[in-house]
Amino acid sequence: MLSTQAHPGYCNGGFDGLHPPSDDDDMVDIAGATLDFSSTDDVPPLRVYEEHQSRAGANGTGPGSLMDPLEDPVPGLGTYEDFNTIDWVREKSKDRDRHREITKNSRRSTAALLHSISDAFSGWLLMLLVGLMAGALAGGIDIAAHWLTDMKEGICLDGFWFSHEHCCWKSSETTFKDRDRCPQWQTWGELITGTSEGAFSYILNYLIYIVWALFFAFLAVTLVRAFAPYACGSGIPEIKTILSGFIIRGYLGKWTLITKTVTLVLAVSSGLSLGKEGPLVHVACCCANILCHLFTKYRKNEAKRREVLSAAAAVGVSVAFGAPIGGVLFSLEEVSYYFPLKTLWRSFFAALVAAFTLRSINPFGNSRLVLFYVEFHAPWHLVELVPFIFLGIFGGLWGALFIKANIAWCRIRKTTRLGRYPIVEVLAVTAVTALVAYPNSYTRMSGAELISELFNDCSLLDSSQLCGYLQVGQTGIGNSLADRPAGPGLFTALWQLALALLFKMLITVVTFGMKVPSGLFIPSMAVGAIAGRLLGVGMEQLAYYNHDGLIFKGWCTPEADCITPGLYAMVGAAACLGGVTRMTVSLVVIMFELTGGLEYIVPLMAAAMTSKWVADAFGREGIYEAHIRLNGYPFLEPKEEFEHSSLAVDVMRPRRSDPPLAVLTQDSMTVGGVESTRYSGFPVVVSQESPRLVGFVLRRDLLISIDNARKRQDGVVGASLVVFSEHPPAQAPDGPPPLRLRGIMDLSPFTVTDHTPMDITVDIFRKLGLRQCLVTHNGRLLGIITKKDILKHMAQIANRDPDSILFN
Amino acid sequence: MLSTQAHPGYCNGGFDGLHPPSDDDDMVDIAGATLDFSSTDDVPPLRVYEEHQSRAGANGTGPGSLMDPLEDPVPGLGTYEDFNTIDWVREKSKDRDRHREITKNSRRSTAALLHSISDAFSGWLLMLLVGLMAGALAGGIDIAAHWLTDMKEGICLDGFWFSHEHCCWKSSETTFKDRDRCPQWQTWGELITGTSEGAFSYILNYLIYIVWALFFAFLAVTLVRAFAPYACGSGIPEIKTILSGFIIRGYLGKWTLITKTVTLVLAVSSGLSLGKEGPLVHVACCCANILCHLFTKYRKNEAKRREVLSAAAAVGVSVAFGAPIGGVLFSLEEVSYYFPLKTLWRSFFAALVAAFTLRSINPFGNSRLVLFYVEFHAPWHLVELVPFIFLGIFGGLWGALFIKANIAWCRIRKTTRLGRYPIVEVLAVTAVTALVAYPNSYTRMSGAELISELFNDCSLLDSSQLCGYLQVGQTGIGNSLADRPAGPGLFTALWQLALALLFKMLITVVTFGMKVPSGLFIPSMAVGAIAGRLLGVGMEQLAYYNHDGLIFKGWCTPEADCITPGLYAMVGAAACLGGVTRMTVSLVVIMFELTGGLEYIVPLMAAAMTSKWVADAFGREGIYEAHIRLNGYPFLEPKEEFEHSSLAVDVMRPRRSDPPLAVLTQDSMTVGGVESTRYSGFPVVVSQESPRLVGFVLRRDLLISIDNARKRQDGVVGASLVVFSEHPPAQAPDGPPPLRLRGIMDLSPFTVTDHTPMDITVDIFRKLGLRQCLVTHNGRLLGIITKKDILKHMAQIANRDPDSILFN
Repeated sequence: MLSTQAHPGYCNGGFDGLHPPSDDDDMVDIAGATLDFSSTDDVPPLRVYEEHQSRAGANGTGPGSLMDPLEDPVPGLGTYEDFNTIDWVREKSKDRDRHREITKNSRRSTAALLHSISDAFSGWLLMLLVGLMAGALAGGIDIAAHWLTDMKEGICLDGFWFSHEHCCWKSSETTFKDRDRCPQWQTWGELITGTSEGAFSYILNYLIYIVWALFFAFLAVTLVRAFAPYACGSGIPEIKTILSGFIIRGYLGKWTLITKTVTLVLAVSSGLSLGKEGPLVHVACCCANILCHLFTKYRKNEAKRREVLSAAAAVGVSVAFGAPIGGVLFSLEEVSYYFPLKTLWRSFFAALVAAFTLRSINPFGNSRLVLFYVEFHAPWHLVELVPFIFLGIFGGLWGALFIKANIAWCRIRKTTRLGRYPIVEVLAVTAVTALVAYPNSYTRMSGAELISELFNDCSLLDSSQLCGYLQVGQTGIGNSLADRPAGPGLFTALWQLALALLFKMLITVVTFGMKVPSGLFIPSMAVGAIAGRLLGVGMEQLAYYNHDGLIFKGWCTPEADCITPGLYAMVGAAACLGGVTRMTVSLVVIMFELTGGLEYIVPLMAAAMTSKWVADAFGREGIYEAHIRLNGYPFLEPKEEFEHSSLAVDVMRPRRSDPPLAVLTQDSMTVGGVESTRYSGFPVVVSQESPRLVGFVLRRDLLISIDNARKRQDGVVGASLVVFSEHPPAQAPDGPPPLRLRGIMDLSPFTVTDHTPMDITVDIFRKLGLRQCLVTHNGRLLGIITKKDILKHMAQIANRDPDSILFN
Repeated sequence: MLSTQAHPGYCNGGFDGLHPPSDDDDMVDIAGATLDFSSTDDVPPLRVYEEHQSRAGANGTGPGSLMDPLEDPVPGLGTYEDFNTIDWVREKSKDRDRHREITKNSRRSTAALLHSISDAFSGWLLMLLVGLMAGALAGGIDIAAHWLTDMKEGICLDGFWFSHEHCCWKSSETTFKDRDRCPQWQTWGELITGTSEGAFSYILNYLIYIVWALFFAFLAVTLVRAFAPYACGSGIPEIKTILSGFIIRGYLGKWTLITKTVTLVLAVSSGLSLGKEGPLVHVACCCANILCHLFTKYRKNEAKRREVLSAAAAVGVSVAFGAPIGGVLFSLEEVSYYFPLKTLWRSFFAALVAAFTLRSINPFGNSRLVLFYVEFHAPWHLVELVPFIFLGIFGGLWGALFIKANIAWCRIRKTTRLGRYPIVEVLAVTAVTALVAYPNSYTRMSGAELISELFNDCSLLDSSQLCGYLQVGQTGIGNSLADRPAGPGLFTALWQLALALLFKMLITVVTFGMKVPSGLFIPSMAVGAIAGRLLGVGMEQLAYYNHDGLIFKGWCTPEADCITPGLYAMVGAAACLGGVTRMTVSLVVIMFELTGGLEYIVPLMAAAMTSKWVADAFGREGIYEAHIRLNGYPFLEPKEEFEHSSLAVDVMRPRRSDPPLAVLTQDSMTVGGVESTRYSGFPVVVSQESPRLVGFVLRRDLLISIDNARKRQDGVVGASLVVFSEHPPAQAPDGPPPLRLRGIMDLSPFTVTDHTPMDITVDIFRKLGLRQCLVTHNGRLLGIITKKDILKHMAQIANRDPDSILFN
């Protein structure tokens, strides 16, 4: 039980006791008991540490130098423990101190001036590096995934390291029509039996396909288990939590990066119903975190580092879709917590650098920036908003249903024995996926290919099954793209698509959350795109056969191109992605960047809005928030308003029946008394009789300082007085000298009055990024509210288990 | 003096005593003395109101009902005076109370449920209405401005209400070539002399042009003076201030809207060097403010209304440029103060509605959404980044210089007699502009037309002077757009452009800030576009004659199209606009939406970044911030970090030498004592001996409540006790009953300790939108910090006059 409490169940499986590898990219993890402001119900929540000893001794060498902003003379002071929340105000204040110091020094010497300039530009340099690294990695992942995916089906005779496409590029014999049939590329069946025809060859291909898929999946899950348990899942829920101020050491470290990059390629290649877009955000954030270590400014400051990580999230989406503006808005809307304007501008820069790096690697082989490039020829008609809104409803329903089903499945995994066999689970799902997917060409192809094909507008030369229309009339220029009746090819495609839709909807529920890297963007979009294309083709045929009917009259003539099924696929994809993630503006902008025309923004927006509203009616959480809650992370949702009318006094600790608050007095505590405390932070008051607030001190800082004082200074014993006041009390001649620790005390703790409504308190926590806040009544200290208390209170209001919030 | 203190010098002219018309669209302005927390130096800043009277009387009918969130039983309670700052926390809390009430009621009856649903969707409905109204108005302004601009040059014989373009559309005789010469359209000279040739006709045209220009300008300035002095200028500085929480009654009222719309058309038509883009933001905000009155939710809540206004700012830019995404980012980056995600999504919706409304009105006559549609054919080469960065430097220098010159000129206008004659000033500038502009075709055409022409890529058929290249070689398809040597037409165009550049740079300095509506976007972009085009043509000729030279080798062959002068113009426009406004992402995105291709984002970004850096080196303020400071508005810049290391105790009032803080005690003040107070707000403490904070009360609320109590309740006399405590003190049998006012007291005033660094305090003020904050030391009340105190402190640090901050 304890290990589940100490570490979340990554990827929502029952966590099996694996500890994440300690990652030296991150700060030194100081061993210490897990400290907790609040309490479980069986332990009294807050104890009073009363100490009334009046031994004193003058000591002038108090840790005044502790306040030096540029260096930590006492190592570890001001750092955080794993699985704890940072104090944004303190971090930002620290950075401002540092900056002030540099500015002040810069007037003194040329070297300091240069240092100041390089400091000012280090943010931009870092962004450049993040963009380059993430772009290059994304390109590498694309190329490798293509190669391995093709490997499942066959091999290039010119060299096994060529993908199908590369192999056939080299072939000089290929004409436009035979692009897929170049002699250098042979399926496994062809290679072994010598012929591509026949049932035997087919079955051989089928079997080898399954074997490869199982092999890739096995490799992926084993690598994740062996090297970086954090590498599984999409990573976005955790990144959201980290950006909100939580610390998960190693989550963005170099082992995670390497493992995630490799296993992502394997997972995608195994043919599972998952995408690489979400994990690319994690990869980009790992890059950013690692590169942060090159710059003191970002290495030493958790708040500054989170600015860079916000930008990295934008970079991730930018390289995933080739949509830099959409990426920035995604980071702003969906992932980030603290997003100042400076970060907006830098994110945009990094996203562009990454997009252009990716383009120069050119993994799609078409020098296009975007993942799905679409160009539609026909405008849309106002009447079509009805089917678009219908797609929005479908997307919303599917999103809500998917979230409920996936969370239920993850809960089963977490609570039953299933969670103990992640490898078996992955192999089973892979086997089922491969078995079912192979016979249907729409499930066999990768998600991205499928979406591309569904978005595509049929031209006359298109040989795809989806464009299997009957040719009627003259094929002049005027009506080359006109509506045509469906032919047998299209009918085959339609029922295959319907089966694919059903299969994708089911398999994605069990796939997302397994112990392999898995993104949700592509599977959701695929579901929506299939539904949209089906509806689009339906509408098209309806229009073709009823072009004089009531609704089509006036805009659909027999020779005109009035319905674009590809547009329906795109709208459907947006609707489903919106339903699952509840993205809004960023979704529409990403889609807009794919088409490059404002023309289709209105259909996309109509669908995205409907989808969000419908899905919100079933529960306001998107998939990422749902997974955050499932894992018990301390995440204070910035989007939701706190609706309840409770006051600060109702939420604070101690509660009415509890013993009074554990406080330290400013000049009457001994070292021994302080060391025996249990809570992770204490308000310091004038005296027990007059509980007026002086400051706030963290137990971690206190212990580190006392340890340090013991090493550096003689005479620090258990009976030494710990003094927080400005002027030490009158000295007793026989006692040990007092230990002056005013320097480590936060002299400006946040306070609210007991009558402050909780909505205002929650707002203050959110906007300022607080860890805790003290409650006063008429100037007297009354209690304390931590972020965890607020989250527990919110859980209670929503009739959820308050103990599901695991961390501070 | 007093009137200048009470009202800012609009449009930065010496304010001439005109009072803005009272605008009944806004809330009732309650007459009262101008109240001020802080002080001028000759008045003691804070006085103590000590009252020790112990008369008491039980009274159960205290204004407990004052807390009802849905209605104000006491009119005026909780409202603000003109030229005061709102309390964001209180406003948002009020709205949450209202929302909670509605949600609670909705469970009771169907009517209440419907009310709850309509309340939830009223925001969207309002956005739709704002989009429709602003789009329609923008379309109207475009059409009217075109018509009046053409009116200066000639008239349509088919009907005077046709613009040149409309007139010639109707002409059936027009061919492609003679589009500008249709018989229905006659210049004034032609109409009078019967011929379009000859010096007499030219001089006649010239004179009539000047007369019209003066007439339009006179009309514009007179209307502004007569109906709405707030209608002048671009309005963006004031809107920024209003969005940050300031109240300027009537600034967004219906008179301002009507006057601004009409005079904007006149000002643009008069040929002055100004644009309509900035004022369109003001027009859209007026629409939003007026439409807010339809919905109680937005009418009664200043914070909610500001959310709508933020969206309206996005709408304004969306219709100005046809760039909805850019508009939203503009609002986010440049104008808004409080921009929650909900507003992002709604802004986007409103911006799209507005853009599509404008497109269906089709004022540009080409069914294009965007103001300057450009499509370039050639890609750019990495080497070209050098001239692009050069353009960025130019833009930054021009921006910094422009701001300094314009502010200096506005200061002259404010302090000398020039400010007293705004009509003369406008007429003089108009006369000079018309006189100088007419002979040069590039200054005669409107700013938007000029920019369009400069952005344009020369095709072979282009008859423009700017495309006056010599035709060389074969004119096959392959090299139709290839680089060509400059011909005499182009040389003429170049020197005309050089003169136009000089003229625009000078005249814009004196034009911006005059008492007519005037935007800065178009003039700045015009300056940059001219500079860019000149550089572009220079580069092109260099490449043509040196295509084998070192830098052009490899990418410029004689037959290829390697340099696009139009792109240079665009980059230059972005650089200059960036230098003046310091926009970054929004600028690039607006430009991106104009071209619709990600291809050219890198040049734009390089120029915008360089421009911002260069301009920032000369002063970190953009033109809007500079004007805000010039007017002394209380605007706490959210972008700039507070760098100084002062503490709250250094900034708070009272200062060390001052008398102690004016406080009220919770149960020992009389009505008479309270009424004789002077400051606009008071902390309430336990007692004079124990200055522990109980709450905070505003004088305005206090006076309104006492007045109301006098009307409703007998026995309220000067000697009645005012009680803020929960339990009234023991009652004296002979005294008047006490007045219980706990209901109007803010029980959760914000406090910081005296040791809180000012950077943190400023952060709290910014993020929470505070008006004031109390300072405590060890639980005792010490002083107060208001927004104005902070701004004065910041002015002092920057060596500016702290008394330049005029308002609370």
